[in-house]
Formats: sequence, C-alpha cells, structure tokens
Amino acid sequence: RINSDRLWDSIMEMAKIGPGIAGGNNRQTVTDEDGEGRHLFKRWCEAAGLEMGLDEMGTMFARREGADPSLPPVYVGSHLDTQPTGGKYDGVLGVLGGLEIIRSLNDLGITTRHPIVVTNWTNEEGSRFAPAMMASGVFAGVLEQADVYQHTDKQGKKFGEELERIGWKGTEKVGDRKIHAFFELHIEQGPILEDEGIDIGVVTHGQGLKWLQVTLTGKEAHTGSTPMPKRRNAGLGMARVIELVHEIAMDYQPDAVGAVGHMEVFPNSRNIIAGRTVFTIDIRSPEKEVLDAMDGRIREGIDTICEALDIQYKVEQVGAFDPVTFDAGCVKAIRDAADRLGYSHRNLVSGAGHDACWINRVAPTAMVMCPCVDGLSHNEAEEISKEWAGAGADVLFHAVVETAGI
Amino acid sequence: RINSDRLWDSIMEMAKIGPGIAGGNNRQTVTDEDGEGRHLFKRWCEAAGLEMGLDEMGTMFARREGADPSLPPVYVGSHLDTQPTGGKYDGVLGVLGGLEIIRSLNDLGITTRHPIVVTNWTNEEGSRFAPAMMASGVFAGVLEQADVYQHTDKQGKKFGEELERIGWKGTEKVGDRKIHAFFELHIEQGPILEDEGIDIGVVTHGQGLKWLQVTLTGKEAHTGSTPMPKRRNAGLGMARVIELVHEIAMDYQPDAVGAVGHMEVFPNSRNIIAGRTVFTIDIRSPEKEVLDAMDGRIREGIDTICEALDIQYKVEQVGAFDPVTFDAGCVKAIRDAADRLGYSHRNLVSGAGHDACWINRVAPTAMVMCPCVDGLSHNEAEEISKEWAGAGADVLFHAVVETAGI
Ligand SMILES: NC(=O)NCCC(=O)O
Ligand SMILES: NC(=O)NCCC(=O)O
Repeated sequence: RINSDRLWDSIMEMAKIGPGIAGGNNRQTVTDEDGEGRHLFKRWCEAAGLEMGLDEMGTMFARREGADPSLPPVYVGSHLDTQPTGGKYDGVLGVLGGLEIIRSLNDLGITTRHPIVVTNWTNEEGSRFAPAMMASGVFAGVLEQADVYQHTDKQGKKFGEELERIGWKGTEKVGDRKIHAFFELHIEQGPILEDEGIDIGVVTHGQGLKWLQVTLTGKEAHTGSTPMPKRRNAGLGMARVIELVHEIAMDYQPDAVGAVGHMEVFPNSRNIIAGRTVFTIDIRSPEKEVLDAMDGRIREGIDTICEALDIQYKVEQVGAFDPVTFDAGCVKAIRDAADRLGYSHRNLVSGAGHDACWINRVAPTAMVMCPCVDGLSHNEAEEISKEWAGAGADVLFHAVVETAGI
Repeated sequence: RINSDRLWDSIMEMAKIGPGIAGGNNRQTVTDEDGEGRHLFKRWCEAAGLEMGLDEMGTMFARREGADPSLPPVYVGSHLDTQPTGGKYDGVLGVLGGLEIIRSLNDLGITTRHPIVVTNWTNEEGSRFAPAMMASGVFAGVLEQADVYQHTDKQGKKFGEELERIGWKGTEKVGDRKIHAFFELHIEQGPILEDEGIDIGVVTHGQGLKWLQVTLTGKEAHTGSTPMPKRRNAGLGMARVIELVHEIAMDYQPDAVGAVGHMEVFPNSRNIIAGRTVFTIDIRSPEKEVLDAMDGRIREGIDTICEALDIQYKVEQVGAFDPVTFDAGCVKAIRDAADRLGYSHRNLVSGAGHDACWINRVAPTAMVMCPCVDGLSHNEAEEISKEWAGAGADVLFHAVVETAGI
C-alpha cells in the first residue's frame, strides 16, 4: 500500500501555489503559478531520483529506470493546471498519485522491469486556451502543435508564447515516446461513487464532447430610443441559444449533457443592445450518434433563431473528442487490483474528458476514479477524503506495478 | 444663424480625442480621455471669453456675463462623455452647440440680459458607472453625491477617486446655482425625424426608465460530469430572464422597450456551469403605469425562473427616472424658434434619458432634437449631417437668446 499521509501532504503543499479565493486553486495553464507548481513537482521528482524530460508542449516526463531500460515505460499521471475556480484534486491527485507510487517503490526497494514515467500534461483544463487536453492531444497526433501554439486567451495572448515565457517549453519532439501502457487516477467529478458508497470507479468508457464556439453579430444600438422591431439583439440571440442547448440536452439526458459556461458580450454596456456575443456550447454523450444528433439540432436551431432576430452567426468547433472505450487489459488490471486490495468498485463512464482519453488512441490506457463530495468539481469547494485518495492511489500502484512487472 | 461650419469643425476636433475602433469614440467618463476632452473644451471656452466654474461632481459651467449679472443665467449644454463604442455626436453636439451660440453672440456683439452658461455634465452615459445622468441627478437633488462617489466600475475603481485622479473634481458645491432655464440640443437617437424628413424635434416628454441589476447565484460545477438534474445553472437563469424581459417589452411596445446589454458570467470557463451571473435589465416607457407593471412582471418572472432552477437571486435598482413632461414655456420657445427660422418640426418623446430630464425638476427645461442616420446611436457608426446639426443649433440659439433677453 502507498503512504496516504505523504500523498495528502503533497497535495496540500501543491494547493498553496496559485490559491483561489474560496479555498481552492486558480493555477491556470502556462501562468506564473503553473510555472511555480511545475518547479515544486520537479524538485519532488528529483528528490525521488527521477530524471525529468520536457517536450515542446511543456509536458513533464519524470522517469524511474526499469530493470530493463530498453523496454517501453509504463506511464502514469494527469495534470497540475486548474480551472480559474478549481479544486485542489482535479488532476493533481493523478500526478502526485503517480509520484507516490515512485516514492513507495523507493521505500520498498523495488525495481520494476519496465521503467515508470510520471507525467504532468500541459493544459488539460482548456479554460484559458481551448481545447482541453491540449498537450496529450498533440502527443496523440489529433491536434497540431503549430496550430495550438497560436491559440489565444481572452487577452489575446498566444499559448506558445506563454509557454515559452514561463520557461517550460522543452526541446523534446512531442509524441516520440513509446508507451507500454498509461494509467490515470482522477476524482470522479460526478456523484455516483459517493451516492453508492463505493471506493473505486473502474473507468471503462469516456463520453465524447463537442465545443462549438458561436459568434453572433447583430447591431449595437441604444436600449432606450431604438424601437423594438428595429433591434438586432445579439444578446437575446445568445439567450435563446443557451435555452436551446439546455432543452436539447434535457431531451437526451441521462445519455447527454449540455451547457454554455463561457460568454462574452460586446460592448457590454447597460444601455447598448449587444452588437456581438461570443460563447461556447459544451455538449457531451457516451454515444457518438447522440452527440452528432445534438450537434445537428443545435446548428439548425441557431439558424432559426438568428433568422428571426435578423442577426448573423458563425459556429466553429474549438474542441471535440469521440466517445472512448478504454483498453480491456488495462481496465482488467485496475479491476483486479481493486479486488486484490479488497476495495468495493464498479464500472464508470467518465463524464469529463481526460488526458487518458487521448493517450488511449496511441497506447493501452485506463483510468481509476475515487469519489468526490457531492460529485462537485470545477468549483473551489471540490473535496475528497484522505482515505478515498489513498484507496485510489493503492489501486493505481498495484495496476502500474503489475503492468510494469517485477 | 449660427456658423455650422465652425460647429462641425469643433465636433470633428473633439472626436479626435478618445477615438474608437470603428470611426466613433471611446471617451468614457472620468478616464484620461475624458480629461483631455475637458481641457480642449476649456481652452475653447476661454478663447471665447467665458469664465469656467467646476463643481464637486466635475460638471463644467462656462459663463458669459449678461447685461444684468444679478439675474439667474440661462443654461445650455449636454455631455462630452461617450459610450465604450459611442458616436461623435451623442452629447457632444449639445455642448459644442452651446459653445457655438456664445461664439455667434460674440461675432454679433450681442449681450443678453441674463448671463448664459454652457455646461458639460459629468457621466451622462452611465456605462462605466451607473446610473446615467449622474452629475445632473446630484445637481437636481435626486442622487446623493456621497453615495455615487462610491459607485464602482467593472475594475472596482470608484467614481469619486477617478474624478479626483483625472484632476477634474472642483470645489463648488453641487446644485447651488440658480437656473433661469435650461436648454439641451441632442441627436434624436431614434428613427422618427429621419423617416419623416423633418428637421427639428420639439421634445415635449421623456420616457421613464428603470435599471434593475440582477445577481443570480447557482453552483459552479463541471459541464461534463454533473448530471442535468443536479445543475444549478446561473447562466441558464440569465438566459431565461433576458428572454422574459424581451417578451414583456414586446407585450407593451410601442409604449415600452426592454433589453439586457450588460452581462457578467463567473467564472466564465467553457467547462464550468456558471455559478454566478450579474446583469442589468433596462426597461423604459413614457407611461409610469406601464413601467411599474413591467417591473412587477419582471420581478415575479425572476422569482419563478429561479425557483425552477434552484438558484438564488438579488434584484437591485441601480438607476431610475420617472417619465418627464418638459416645461411648456421652454417647449414653446423651441417651437417658436423653429417656426421663425422656417424649419419643419414635430413633437417628440425622448426615448433616451438626458441631463435635461433631471434639470427639468429644478428649473424650466426643454430639448431640441435633430435627426440621426437610421436612428442609430450608442454605435460608433452614429452619423448626422452638418445641415441637421446646424438647424438644431440655430433653433437652440434662438430659443436661448429669446429666453435670456436682449
Ligand atoms: N477532468 C476535467 O475536468 N477535464 C477538463 C476537460 C473537460 O472539460 O472534460
Ligand atoms: N442620451 C443618452 O444616450 N443617454 C444615456 C442614458 C440613457 O441610457 O438613456
């Protein structure tokens, strides 16, 4: 078993970097705070005898040598970046859980046959720069590095320039590594495990996602003196699309979800009818057909809404992944580990996207989940218990070591 | 007649300060650009022999002495601040139209019996700091100076501190002046005069307004892994309120208008259900009963919407004025001037709020309007012709001189 006190202490130490305003974290990708978190992780890795690699997307690869260095490593990890109002565990548990495996192997004096590499994937959250799981997406060959370098945040800053600015752009070419298997531990971010009182989620599938960024263009005009029939209100258009997305998601739930969390209004003045709005629709489903059907209905609905309001629209897909089926062997390794350790478990479909979803396309991959209080995540109040974290890391430990061989 | 070329040149000169991004202006209240515009206006006033007064709200009062200095002055003016995406004429025409009257009187060597004071009222637009017509509201005793000093912009900067910072906080107590009459020239900001091919609007009434700032509090949560029934979506709540305001306004139009132009979303991340939204409802009507009925229906509707979504709400009135009936004598002075000068004219109800609406409570007041292209305002593309501006300023000139006496 791993040392859950040590794991917990490290999580709490990391949470001091980029504190939020309500007990959680604001350590968004490629900010100064992200850089500081990386330095701390690097110091810990070096103290544990690991050798750090860094690729051109800023992903960190901390390697523990295997008995046979020529074998492809078993990878384990997640991400250290957070949402603007993020929790202390989303991503961090997976990275520091990976580190805890190494520390436990060191304690036990065990050398695995395959090397083990602990990873911190850059920009998993996708909040500051779309899309989410950016670095793992480039690693898996589904995103273009040159393209995502140009992606901008709300201030117009470019991802590539910010990565360079914080000093964490490496020289290693992205995606060149051979991966024997990849395991990711993550909090569930949903309510099922806690509701059912189950220790471990064995993640068999992940939902697919589409992010549709919509730009509506109406006409700025005075809210007081412009007659109602003359208005071309891009704010009203946005409101109708938000309602549309909700209604469509309700039609397909529980097999789908949908919402708009990102909205910008121009010029955003109390007495100006919005001339332009930009917002991102987030729709998800474990069924590709459902996702495609929702996408179609949304595009049709936007067309109808905009025609009625005499406004123009543009819809751009700024993120997408198909539903994922994780590797049967890796899934079995996790389930077997939970059984062996005596933890209750059940199969889960991940509601969120994870780096594991991309890496699954290039290497055998699976995920372990632990419960989180009230299923709450992407909220500073995100909470888990030390026992839950410890159980998850135990299962991760056994699955990784089993796969890496002794 | 006034010199419409000179008036036009001055308008174009002022428009160079705080240029927008699309041919208009961004010279928001108590910014550095506002300060620069004030300096230019002051230089022009001094060149025209006027003496500048400045009160604690930053309102500028440029006085031309009368034959009988003991008589209360006739005031004429408007505002030099603009919307973030404002036009070159909204407000500016009224201030520089007032200055043009003085220049024309100087040219003609005429001394009026009453002094004449040209005013630039601070923060008419209310975009950066609510409410609109802030300084004239304090002057008229309907707003509290100590209170509005504390009002903040989106960056949390206080109005009073910003006024001091730009160096335009005077020492004169606000509202102490005796006003014989106040005249304001303004572009219509609506389509009626242009549609009907009429030169001059004789403004008999102004619509009433309410600004209701709504704060919705739901719960931040993951857009992917939070089941639809567990969501408390403050973004969806905002969308429903925007639609509600529109529907209610449509029920009462053409006797009412309503929209939401200002919206803020927290934390505004693509994959976080909004935990909080803040936005301002703008409703207007020339009938107080209609305005009150709309207000009631909106508050009821918000309650219903929020109950269904399990979110909390707060509604704060951050701006309001009752419908206005302008002074019969001043209105007649304007109509007579238009008749005398041979300009076509019609009565108008002002759709927008104006400083004249507040000053009307403490002194006889009326407004002259000139057409604007397509009724468009609060848009950088706002446009008028030199002839329209000249006709409006001619009528203003005659009404002011008639009232000030020779
Ligand atoms: N796990 C997680 O929150 N990932 C962010 C990407 C997503 O929105 O699913
Ligand atoms: N005239 C004008 O645009 N005033 C701003 C206040 C309002 O919104 O009516």
